[in-house]
Amino acid sequence: MEKFLSKIMDAASEGKKLGVEDPRRIIHSLKVGLAITLVSVFYYFDPLYQGFGVSAMWAVITVVVVFEFSVGATLGRGINRGIATLLAGSLGVGAHRLANFPGEKLEPVILGLSVFLVAAAVTYIRFYPKLKARYDYGLLIFLLTFCLISVSGYRDDEVLKMAHKRLSTILIGGSAAVVVCSFICPVWAGEDLHILVAGNIENLGIFLQGFGHEYFQTSYDKLLDDDKASSDEYKSVLNSKSTEEYLANFARWEPRHGRFRYRHPWDQYLKIGVLVRECAYRIDALNGYLNSEMKTPPEIRAKIQESCTKMSSESSLALKQLALSVKAMSSSSIADPHIFNAKTAAKKLKSLLKTDLWEDTNFLEIIPAAAVTSLLIEIVSCTVKIADSV
Amino acid sequence: MEKFLSKIMDAASEGKKLGVEDPRRIIHSLKVGLAITLVSVFYYFDPLYQGFGVSAMWAVITVVVVFEFSVGATLGRGINRGIATLLAGSLGVGAHRLANFPGEKLEPVILGLSVFLVAAAVTYIRFYPKLKARYDYGLLIFLLTFCLISVSGYRDDEVLKMAHKRLSTILIGGSAAVVVCSFICPVWAGEDLHILVAGNIENLGIFLQGFGHEYFQTSYDKLLDDDKASSDEYKSVLNSKSTEEYLANFARWEPRHGRFRYRHPWDQYLKIGVLVRECAYRIDALNGYLNSEMKTPPEIRAKIQESCTKMSSESSLALKQLALSVKAMSSSSIADPHIFNAKTAAKKLKSLLKTDLWEDTNFLEIIPAAAVTSLLIEIVSCTVKIADSV
Repeated sequence: MEKFLSKIMDAASEGKKLGVEDPRRIIHSLKVGLAITLVSVFYYFDPLYQGFGVSAMWAVITVVVVFEFSVGATLGRGINRGIATLLAGSLGVGAHRLANFPGEKLEPVILGLSVFLVAAAVTYIRFYPKLKARYDYGLLIFLLTFCLISVSGYRDDEVLKMAHKRLSTILIGGSAAVVVCSFICPVWAGEDLHILVAGNIENLGIFLQGFGHEYFQTSYDKLLDDDKASSDEYKSVLNSKSTEEYLANFARWEPRHGRFRYRHPWDQYLKIGVLVRECAYRIDALNGYLNSEMKTPPEIRAKIQESCTKMSSESSLALKQLALSVKAMSSSSIADPHIFNAKTAAKKLKSLLKTDLWEDTNFLEIIPAAAVTSLLIEIVSCTVKIADSV
Repeated sequence: MEKFLSKIMDAASEGKKLGVEDPRRIIHSLKVGLAITLVSVFYYFDPLYQGFGVSAMWAVITVVVVFEFSVGATLGRGINRGIATLLAGSLGVGAHRLANFPGEKLEPVILGLSVFLVAAAVTYIRFYPKLKARYDYGLLIFLLTFCLISVSGYRDDEVLKMAHKRLSTILIGGSAAVVVCSFICPVWAGEDLHILVAGNIENLGIFLQGFGHEYFQTSYDKLLDDDKASSDEYKSVLNSKSTEEYLANFARWEPRHGRFRYRHPWDQYLKIGVLVRECAYRIDALNGYLNSEMKTPPEIRAKIQESCTKMSSESSLALKQLALSVKAMSSSSIADPHIFNAKTAAKKLKSLLKTDLWEDTNFLEIIPAAAVTSLLIEIVSCTVKIADSV
């Protein structure tokens, strides 16, 4: 009993955390409740019920199935469902007519055959990657409606009326979902993508800001907990690919809103995402050296400290500026001075290394420092690439 | 017209490619067609139709919606759908009885309120990450069924009969989908996960095999196209996280099959996956040096060539052996000699570097080689970690 209570307490506190993390979740839940209640009201009024009968339940089903977190996802599912029902309905009625033609005995055979062929073909088409990304739900609903109409047509001769009823109830449910989703505190997938990409660039900047300080400090005592925590934020960038693609797919369905035009270049975000991840992989390698046992002694590190710290802090500033300019959708040129500084620091370091700086030292001990230097140089060039594409 | 024809040709050739890539896709499509046709046959037989009436269409809907590519996914959706319908059906009947109690005027108000509350609560619960991963579909169906039963109960007094019909038709549809999916050429998500993880380890091995050769060759002419192509296979490893989690979720639903027990340690695959990706990030950084403009001159590279080539080839052999032992589910100890050799090479290289090997050389030119060396050492330690967890 106690264990059960503590489990309930855990679930409640997790629920609270989810709400605090993103209050839009609470609003979304209330919106879904509202939309479903609105549609079920249809059912309670006699005149409307007379028109649709039992089919009215399709409106409720549509709201439950179509209502998603972001406007883009809801619109995408709604449009997919509407168009797929229309197409499959007409095709289903056609198949029904065709099956009626040769006589009653052959009817089930022809219907069965057509259902088999359409089901196999549609299922196979769902494997096409491009169609899967945008129209998977539509293809599923197409198959569903086609089977329903052509199969139940065998029993019910009013196929046309049935298809018509189904389509109109789905339109009612779909529009209720879309209206509630887009007009009451809308959540835009496009905006989420925008914030995610800018945030990812910023996270890399935050890591690089702390890196110079952390790597070149001589005593471990100085390491504050704050610095440590901030350096782990970049890890979420490493696996951001699927979230980005998912949001970009939804964003394509969204109409003009706020600062986003109808044909906003969403693909550009994906391209920036690829570059940001490439930079994050280098940073992950760099992070390995922070905790590595094989460390270059402080006196050697001191020689490259200035240039390396400069490179990392200037790259950090450049990335943060880029994140700001992505957020504000302004020109990325404000980051240019920092990129210039980072490049200069890299050049300076290179010429410094050409002099016989480290004579009579143990080569083994230089290696980690050398690797760090080289990775930082790579990160500077990644930053330049990101700046070019923003 | 010509453009249209060429588009159709493109689609057809892409379809062929999809089939050749994974012939199970063709079989899957035929299986879906078969299952739907089987269930729709129910509809054509009078005695069965008398029992279920229009509700028989729920069997068709269930097959279309539940039938997925792998057995795990189909079983998961089927079980989710069945249990959710059962629970929501009983709760819906309960809500209907409760709403009947205070009198006819209040009935729609109480029904509307309970629908609103349940819809908002279930939608919010779907945000819990753990529940989302395994029971998202069940929660959706729970909400759907609850709304349907409690709302349509207002019109139709035979709520209990309706809930019962819905449940039994869903059971028929669900079992048809599960039976066809698991007994005709089944696709096991667990096996796919197993093959994917082993393949990822192997891909890293393939890259490392080619790396030593490619990095230390002196003339560019020798670079064969074959070598180049093989080095890009590791890139798919970088973003494998979502696929792995997706497959592991499905695999948990699967019963004992082949060499896989019921409670196979699927989490272990995810842990190995994390380590493999960590190693892949290092390899991505290493790959950057293959195409880098800043190259260490051949005469310097020659000095570390032997040890580095040894480290990369032995790590490669170790990874390949590990991939084989994952595939065969045998002990990972066959990789031990290679790991031992890689470690020895790393040690040898370290002691080589302690001597003043590179006197009077340009330090800038050493840096890329030093970074490569250091990354290779890191990769060896990643390999050891992977070997420990296999």
